[in-house]
Amino acid sequence: MEIAVDPKLLEILVCPLTKTTLTYDRQNNRLISEAAGLAYPILKGVPIMLIDGAEIIDEIKANEFRGLFSQRNP
Amino acid sequence: MEIAVDPKLLEILVCPLTKTTLTYDRQNNRLISEAAGLAYPILKGVPIMLIDGAEIIDEIKANEFRGLFSQRNP
Repeated sequence: MEIAVDPKLLEILVCPLTKTTLTYDRQNNRLISEAAGLAYPILKGVPIMLIDGAEIIDEIKANEFRGLFSQRNP
Repeated sequence: MEIAVDPKLLEILVCPLTKTTLTYDRQNNRLISEAAGLAYPILKGVPIMLIDGAEIIDEIKANEFRGLFSQRNP
């Protein structure tokens, strides 16, 4: 099996809520979704891509998207 | 808030089972754990880092590690 290794993993990962690209916050070891105002933690090297487990970094954006999410998934 | 962006995300992500580094299989859009003989899918841009959701790519290694895992988590 031949595996094409691509180190630019961040180009293909997206926020599960907004489907926008993520940036890696090295200082706090987490993945930032600017669009959703959320940060997904990386626990022991494993990214936790769950909305409920994300840290809110922008209250306004996060509330906006959480509102949409709640309506779709009551 | 200042964010240090590091594109080398693969250097910090590990297999949840073996804690070893992963490689990105671009062709099949999944993260390979050579040590565990498993591949973690990336569904719609979101990596699913669950042992139960991983695809077995090496039966011998996967069985070895699944055996250990089952003993720890019966």
